[in-house]
Amino acid sequence: MTLKNSEKYLPLSSDIVPRYAGLATFMRLPHVPLEAAENLDIGIVGIPWDSGTTNRAGARHGPRQVREMSALMRRYHPALDISPYELANCADLGDAPVNPLEIVGTLDGLTEHYSAIVQRGITPLSAGGDHLVTLPILRALAKKHGPLGMIQFDAHSDLWDEYFGGSKYAHGTPFRRAIEEGVLDPNRLVQIGLRGGLYSPEDNAWGVAQGVHQFSIEEVDERGISAIMADAVRILGNGKTYVTFDIDCLDPAFAPGTGTPEIGGFTPLQAQKMVRSLRGMNLVGADVVEVSPPFDPGGRTALAGATMMFELLCLLAECRPKSSA
Amino acid sequence: MTLKNSEKYLPLSSDIVPRYAGLATFMRLPHVPLEAAENLDIGIVGIPWDSGTTNRAGARHGPRQVREMSALMRRYHPALDISPYELANCADLGDAPVNPLEIVGTLDGLTEHYSAIVQRGITPLSAGGDHLVTLPILRALAKKHGPLGMIQFDAHSDLWDEYFGGSKYAHGTPFRRAIEEGVLDPNRLVQIGLRGGLYSPEDNAWGVAQGVHQFSIEEVDERGISAIMADAVRILGNGKTYVTFDIDCLDPAFAPGTGTPEIGGFTPLQAQKMVRSLRGMNLVGADVVEVSPPFDPGGRTALAGATMMFELLCLLAECRPKSSA
Amino acid sequence: MTLKNSEKYLPLSSDIVPRYAGLATFMRLPHVPLEAAENLDIGIVGIPWDSGTTNRAGARHGPRQVREMSALMRRYHPALDISPYELANCADLGDAPVNPLEIVGTLDGLTEHYSAIVQRGITPLSAGGDHLVTLPILRALAKKHGPLGMIQFDAHSDLWDEYFGGSKYAHGTPFRRAIEEGVLDPNRLVQIGLRGGLYSPEDNAWGVAQGVHQFSIEEVDERGISAIMADAVRILGNGKTYVTFDIDCLDPAFAPGTGTPEIGGFTPLQAQKMVRSLRGMNLVGADVVEVSPPFDPGGRTALAGATMMFELLCLLAECRPKSSA
Amino acid sequence: MTLKNSEKYLPLSSDIVPRYAGLATFMRLPHVPLEAAENLDIGIVGIPWDSGTTNRAGARHGPRQVREMSALMRRYHPALDISPYELANCADLGDAPVNPLEIVGTLDGLTEHYSAIVQRGITPLSAGGDHLVTLPILRALAKKHGPLGMIQFDAHSDLWDEYFGGSKYAHGTPFRRAIEEGVLDPNRLVQIGLRGGLYSPEDNAWGVAQGVHQFSIEEVDERGISAIMADAVRILGNGKTYVTFDIDCLDPAFAPGTGTPEIGGFTPLQAQKMVRSLRGMNLVGADVVEVSPPFDPGGRTALAGATMMFELLCLLAECRPKSSA
Amino acid sequence: MTLKNSEKYLPLSSDIVPRYAGLATFMRLPHVPLEAAENLDIGIVGIPWDSGTTNRAGARHGPRQVREMSALMRRYHPALDISPYELANCADLGDAPVNPLEIVGTLDGLTEHYSAIVQRGITPLSAGGDHLVTLPILRALAKKHGPLGMIQFDAHSDLWDEYFGGSKYAHGTPFRRAIEEGVLDPNRLVQIGLRGGLYSPEDNAWGVAQGVHQFSIEEVDERGISAIMADAVRILGNGKTYVTFDIDCLDPAFAPGTGTPEIGGFTPLQAQKMVRSLRGMNLVGADVVEVSPPFDPGGRTALAGATMMFELLCLLAECRPKSSA
Amino acid sequence: MTLKNSEKYLPLSSDIVPRYAGLATFMRLPHVPLEAAENLDIGIVGIPWDSGTTNRAGARHGPRQVREMSALMRRYHPALDISPYELANCADLGDAPVNPLEIVGTLDGLTEHYSAIVQRGITPLSAGGDHLVTLPILRALAKKHGPLGMIQFDAHSDLWDEYFGGSKYAHGTPFRRAIEEGVLDPNRLVQIGLRGGLYSPEDNAWGVAQGVHQFSIEEVDERGISAIMADAVRILGNGKTYVTFDIDCLDPAFAPGTGTPEIGGFTPLQAQKMVRSLRGMNLVGADVVEVSPPFDPGGRTALAGATMMFELLCLLAECRPKSSA
Repeated sequence: MTLKNSEKYLPLSSDIVPRYAGLATFMRLPHVPLEAAENLDIGIVGIPWDSGTTNRAGARHGPRQVREMSALMRRYHPALDISPYELANCADLGDAPVNPLEIVGTLDGLTEHYSAIVQRGITPLSAGGDHLVTLPILRALAKKHGPLGMIQFDAHSDLWDEYFGGSKYAHGTPFRRAIEEGVLDPNRLVQIGLRGGLYSPEDNAWGVAQGVHQFSIEEVDERGISAIMADAVRILGNGKTYVTFDIDCLDPAFAPGTGTPEIGGFTPLQAQKMVRSLRGMNLVGADVVEVSPPFDPGGRTALAGATMMFELLCLLAECRPKSSA
Repeated sequence: MTLKNSEKYLPLSSDIVPRYAGLATFMRLPHVPLEAAENLDIGIVGIPWDSGTTNRAGARHGPRQVREMSALMRRYHPALDISPYELANCADLGDAPVNPLEIVGTLDGLTEHYSAIVQRGITPLSAGGDHLVTLPILRALAKKHGPLGMIQFDAHSDLWDEYFGGSKYAHGTPFRRAIEEGVLDPNRLVQIGLRGGLYSPEDNAWGVAQGVHQFSIEEVDERGISAIMADAVRILGNGKTYVTFDIDCLDPAFAPGTGTPEIGGFTPLQAQKMVRSLRGMNLVGADVVEVSPPFDPGGRTALAGATMMFELLCLLAECRPKSSA
Repeated sequence: MTLKNSEKYLPLSSDIVPRYAGLATFMRLPHVPLEAAENLDIGIVGIPWDSGTTNRAGARHGPRQVREMSALMRRYHPALDISPYELANCADLGDAPVNPLEIVGTLDGLTEHYSAIVQRGITPLSAGGDHLVTLPILRALAKKHGPLGMIQFDAHSDLWDEYFGGSKYAHGTPFRRAIEEGVLDPNRLVQIGLRGGLYSPEDNAWGVAQGVHQFSIEEVDERGISAIMADAVRILGNGKTYVTFDIDCLDPAFAPGTGTPEIGGFTPLQAQKMVRSLRGMNLVGADVVEVSPPFDPGGRTALAGATMMFELLCLLAECRPKSSA
Repeated sequence: MTLKNSEKYLPLSSDIVPRYAGLATFMRLPHVPLEAAENLDIGIVGIPWDSGTTNRAGARHGPRQVREMSALMRRYHPALDISPYELANCADLGDAPVNPLEIVGTLDGLTEHYSAIVQRGITPLSAGGDHLVTLPILRALAKKHGPLGMIQFDAHSDLWDEYFGGSKYAHGTPFRRAIEEGVLDPNRLVQIGLRGGLYSPEDNAWGVAQGVHQFSIEEVDERGISAIMADAVRILGNGKTYVTFDIDCLDPAFAPGTGTPEIGGFTPLQAQKMVRSLRGMNLVGADVVEVSPPFDPGGRTALAGATMMFELLCLLAECRPKSSA
Repeated sequence: MTLKNSEKYLPLSSDIVPRYAGLATFMRLPHVPLEAAENLDIGIVGIPWDSGTTNRAGARHGPRQVREMSALMRRYHPALDISPYELANCADLGDAPVNPLEIVGTLDGLTEHYSAIVQRGITPLSAGGDHLVTLPILRALAKKHGPLGMIQFDAHSDLWDEYFGGSKYAHGTPFRRAIEEGVLDPNRLVQIGLRGGLYSPEDNAWGVAQGVHQFSIEEVDERGISAIMADAVRILGNGKTYVTFDIDCLDPAFAPGTGTPEIGGFTPLQAQKMVRSLRGMNLVGADVVEVSPPFDPGGRTALAGATMMFELLCLLAECRPKSSA
Repeated sequence: MTLKNSEKYLPLSSDIVPRYAGLATFMRLPHVPLEAAENLDIGIVGIPWDSGTTNRAGARHGPRQVREMSALMRRYHPALDISPYELANCADLGDAPVNPLEIVGTLDGLTEHYSAIVQRGITPLSAGGDHLVTLPILRALAKKHGPLGMIQFDAHSDLWDEYFGGSKYAHGTPFRRAIEEGVLDPNRLVQIGLRGGLYSPEDNAWGVAQGVHQFSIEEVDERGISAIMADAVRILGNGKTYVTFDIDCLDPAFAPGTGTPEIGGFTPLQAQKMVRSLRGMNLVGADVVEVSPPFDPGGRTALAGATMMFELLCLLAECRPKSSA
């Protein structure tokens, strides 16, 4: 079966195959192993790994459920007027290699896997996994692009130093590590939606000292989404920017299936508007993390995750010329 | 046991029978078969049928769960200051006849059943079922009233033409059919809350060409509910108007039990305010559709559906003089 | 193991013991029986009792699930800049004595138990149970403080007179009884978030005649939270004030686990903002009631309840000098 | 609509109305209020009341869910070769009157209600409710028949004396009360399936002293169902006998929706065989109790309850000549 | 990536990729489209279609959930001492073409699809879908093999004639149609596990008159599995035989996720023993049907389905020489 | 509050405090930190840790849910005629120290913690956690008792060597490690209930070569529980013996909340009979592992776990003279 690339990289048509039918891939796109990914522009990758989770594990099952619910996505985004599959060749690259029993080794393996993706010129759009998975993605992207800017939608800063007396790699520490390793530029790190209790008043000090820009939910509520996003866009500027969307930035009513829920979060429409306001930025990759199916077997959280991935996909598709097909 | 009509058509009193007790009927109203419905003003009808569903079926079970949760409704609406049962004789007319294995035949049977209801001068308030059930209701009402205006709260326009290479009757096509059949006046069709991806940029073209008025969730969010509803009221005017409330207009957090959830939807309070702003219009019927219990066994979605039906019941009750009892 | 008081009354450290580990106590605080509670400032008490529930029971299981989910709370409230455990000695006092088969006797027993707490100078923060549990708390506090003011976040006024032909003590009647008994000052009773249908237009008449201040959800929506809370603060003034938070003031999407859900309620962030605006008032106790785990086994409702308790704990901690340790 | 009795008392035909359609009544039978129940042989009654529950309430919701799941029942029992609706006129008599806030008064009201049923010559088949509901049924039947024999399928003997220091009426005490009141003959009381821990070795002493026949699950497992049921049939003899089926006699895997689950119980097939072996006995009534929907929203327990009710209905139908129609 | 066939047709190794990782395919086998299926011996096919369901739909989602849960399967069956993937080249052929809005047309399309599979010499192992999907499989197999024998594990005979006044194709009628069409030999049709109520005593008459062999659950319980299976094996003999496993043959405790549950069914171990006793027969295909995920989001039913498919796969693998690779 | 030891170590009385009230501890026993555990005979310990889980994590939450459900346990075991709290002083020792981010370090910490328990002469009864937690318990006990015998109820042998290319410590490897380390005597290791697929025919070879005694579910089914347990008792003899009960030995219908479910398992009654047949053996400790609440929020699995712990507690209590109080 030889397909033209333009067909090869299109989602299964829902005019022919009902949405609940067929193998579950991201956005109903074809599954293409990395080694077969010719002319691919955007590769969607699952990272089924939650070994950095300090409380309620389960995000390792995220990619499967996000794939399942992403069957509800369609091809055209009317609010943005973007048809992403006409702008970019897209595919499901399958899951990245992981070992649930090994933290440091898996981080290294993921770094290597994403480096291969990046080297092929593919823009990665990833589905976690807990938030620690973003660290190796940043490492791989920074190898090519240098220290990155990042916009992070999240209830938590994930800038803590360590857990349980010395554990350095956890889902609450990735961006401390990323800044220390020089792959993330703290002056171009914008965090939006922070809320919930902290361990102590000093929790935010380290990040602030590095120059990280933090917007609490209270500040967003007071100043409004437009004002905050104007700030964010200004801070991030034209530099290479990564987008990380922790599903727990949403209120638990919209995303109950996550490990560290905090009440008082965003509505999905707020999240959509914030992400859409990143249009035109210089985006080099994105992820949606912390979808944890065991805490939401019905999949509402995964639907939110899949939809946010489609929003991000539309933006990423605009950021690159379509590979010749 | 001979009751005066005024008693005959009252809900079971919660001062005497606890809400969880007794048979489950809509609003705890008496169950009255159509042939026994003398002096009935408003008949609440279940349509347990979802054979038009292209993806996740289940709305066939909607009427039972809506009945169950409607036991939480009371008799007086303080925000509207309406006591509907003092304005109109109301009853549960039971379920309309359906065959899950037969689409066209069931549509014909439903048309006939609703024609009988309309001929008796009863205003129908219905609980679906998937959205295809609105088509035969419109047919029956249009026989009496001529082409109808309609306000549709929905994430989807349901104006598609066909599915799977030729299937014309599906829950995504009822209003295309209704316009083609002349029972729905496209210039008096207002759709509010549209969102989510589309198959292509052309999806909305047919409706727009017919004169359908579409308000996306983004437009509602930007302009505000009051402005949009003012437009809607102006467009619909004094003509005969039907109200169809697809439960998926609500965000999936508020209505997880539905077949085609789209994140970024209305809150219930927004929906209540929009419906209440229809007060004083010339309403000839209403429905709430797409409540799908298998995707929400706990019944939160059905509670939302039952409450919206009570809101609509209050409006319908004001639209007609109480039958002499 | 002899601890200094300052250590004795601290939550278990999540740096050492993961949040999911250890016995479930409120806020991970030590469990201290009342008779051993020396120098205790704030005692958190469970009231596992729902015998006043007229429809869907289950709130008897509330305290256990709230304890479980409160493990997600931390020590510092960044939005308020309060570290409650530095301001006050806090402990889990266990559950109050209850008999599910006996209403009046249990109310008497609870009154006695809370009187003992109050006599020891401990500020009670309670987790219900259905709303009837607030009555004995008010009785105990009024013995010391005289008739109390109260702010009530609730979908229902709970001012009804009786149920089922003569039952006077039910979860819809506590504040009628409290006003009749003289333990609650109706002129200093503020109710916020009322909504849903009523039995008749007269339902609110008694309360209004007593001078109760009622703010419906529609009024809050129209005037805004700041305006309403300014009114509330002015009405309550500097007098002794109790805070009761019925979890059903939240929309059922945020709090599905409750006995009498009403759509169209508050978001958690709205609730947080309202509670925070009580800062600086003269608070003598607080509770969160009507969390009903059987209707939300996943615990999202209990998480909301636990978080609101932490919000209230921060306010209560500011209201008293820390006991010398 | 005048029906011949034979039609009046038939279940809705599933050849015409799908099982999920129509109002939920027991076995899809017509709902006939007691005062309209002419020539009725067997009346199926719901008792939505669980105020005797000492731990996990919820059985008040049992009748509704049993009605819902009983739509899966059909008209003919092939293993017994019985068509119950040809042998007896059957109807759903609705729910008995209850007050969740009042124990003794409700027991009196239920006694009165069942007395009226019995006086009309109707054999009652009931759906609880917790096990305390059987006490008033026995009282009513004993008024007519004298002290009854009873076979009880149950994990617990329900012969305890009191709870919480003096509460005499609870779901663990009905048969102590029934024996004390003289409505139950302890020498003709057979209890099958007892298991689980006890409070003390003396728990069974009172019952044994009265002559109650107890068969533990271990004895049933060792001797086999046939041997045990042969004993039971011999003990009960030809006297008037009542059958009470506590759903917790089944293992929790088959009946998770119950208040006091005990592992190690019967399979449904074992239960069916035991009940069927009662064929030919002199049965005057039966019930299925302790189905608690909040602990099984999916309804598997209620399905088991509905099926056991159909088994019992077949036996009861054989016990009486069909009323002339 | 060129694989040797032997590698090409092996499941993903769980030594390398954790079970929860990677795309969900049947048994973790490679997904191979039919047109690329060279040297394939056994093709596993999903049929996501439940348009023949007369009551509770949902089996359309069965193939996805069975794929998901089949990740728990391993490569070697110790009780049978069979390594199926060493005996036969196996693959996931994806889902067969279906249209949820069209019954007869879909049956024709499925017949065609399975005919293509059979023509390629591939033994089909299928996952439904409701039981109507077996009809087109039998048609396709009978084209090659002539009228087939069949062993059916099921609570229901599925030999009814029609539903709702004339609907001939439903999940309760496939084997009536198959016998009428001559693709199923009624004298070699063995049905095991029949139970539950019937519409009338005549329900079984047609099948018996055709020579169908029916074993009720009661007969299996009385005579034992070995005796029944000895009969079955004798009846089926050496002729071409198809195996159809309706998941509702299991008790609902083991398989709650199905449309027509009947209590009193088999345990999984009984089912495994029955299926294993078919070893050595002349099997030409098999299926597992009626897994309905909406009624069991947790997937226990799908796990049972996946395991029974692995049992069947082992038997099918022994029935054919491995294609030269 | 000074209690006599006999009172200090008794469960909370359900005559006074309802089962759903009070803090959740194992069996409603007092929580006594290890350093305060004077004269304690049996210490119940939670091990909230699942970092050895290769597929579906969640057992870290096991101890909390087992504590919750153990409130349903009572004081006297009628089938064994044992009142364990009269034979031995028992307490809840809280949770052992764990770090979810660290495998080897946690195993060392657990070994140390259990060594302290054993040194104090306390018999440990533990609730996992995944099965890897048994390794450090065995290490601690073997320090005192030498290489232990063990009876293991389990679907899996847990004798694999490594996972994912080199990970030696996983929940599938503890007993390989224990044998290699010399803390477990393979000739006195009895495994009962093994079933499900294997990776290869060689999977069992290592264990068999060491002399491990394995009884598959098929062998148990064929020979009967009595015969198998007679073998087990003979093999284990009078030596020091540990009992480990993996909840997945039960069929998933009885224990859905576990990480590696395998259909075709034991019923709870079978498990109870097997455990009871260990009466009189020389037992030095026991555990119940692999209860995973996220896969069974309702807690049926935890109830089975709690009940099996009570069964084991009765046996352990008989194995030691009560500490002088």
